[in-house]
Amino acid sequence: MARQIRDVVEQYVKLVGSGPTEAIVDLYAPDATVEDPIGTPPKQGRDAIREFYTVLANLERETSIHPDTIRITGNHAAFMFTLVTKAAEQRITLHPIDVMEFDDEGRIVHMRAYWGPDDLNVEPA
Amino acid sequence: MARQIRDVVEQYVKLVGSGPTEAIVDLYAPDATVEDPIGTPPKQGRDAIREFYTVLANLERETSIHPDTIRITGNHAAFMFTLVTKAAEQRITLHPIDVMEFDDEGRIVHMRAYWGPDDLNVEPA
Repeated sequence: MARQIRDVVEQYVKLVGSGPTEAIVDLYAPDATVEDPIGTPPKQGRDAIREFYTVLANLERETSIHPDTIRITGNHAAFMFTLVTKAAEQRITLHPIDVMEFDDEGRIVHMRAYWGPDDLNVEPA
Repeated sequence: MARQIRDVVEQYVKLVGSGPTEAIVDLYAPDATVEDPIGTPPKQGRDAIREFYTVLANLERETSIHPDTIRITGNHAAFMFTLVTKAAEQRITLHPIDVMEFDDEGRIVHMRAYWGPDDLNVEPA
């Protein structure tokens, strides 16, 4: 299970950086929830989750996982990764800690992202 | 609030390394829960939490927070730290990711620790 969860985590970060959106959505269970950042109203179900990731799909972006931060126990994982998005005039860098819970088939059932305004780095593109 | 939460997080890691146990317990709300690691039955309430940290108090130990991993948003925090414990013949190093939720007074209401067997490093002391 740990091996399978690690694969999904690595695939998730890769897909957030390059898409396609549908492949990200496929990592989630049908009734999954996404709280990004944690404390905001959860998006529930694949339609809401698709809508959330579609915003990213329109941006030039890249991601990398911090491999030494991946923590896996039972059906839970936590990890840090870097997301860089480039819009017309801004380059935004974010290093969230995400936590995920998985079902027995290795699909994400809950994702919660920890990052605040202090963790956004905005530079001219 | 973010400043207050950061202080509690830093104080928590310091106290886990040096105690006293009662000072750790005081960082928690009366009905708080601790899941360490996540997926194990939660310890609920200060008595159960005290019992949990008392185990640590009998070990030689040190801790350090990884300051660049501290993520704070609303009443939530996530961070990685290092815990080294030295028993008679073993030195055990662990780098968990902890997530915490706080009440309006800045007390911890839920703590969940992410680490698995793969994250324990055991060496001769």
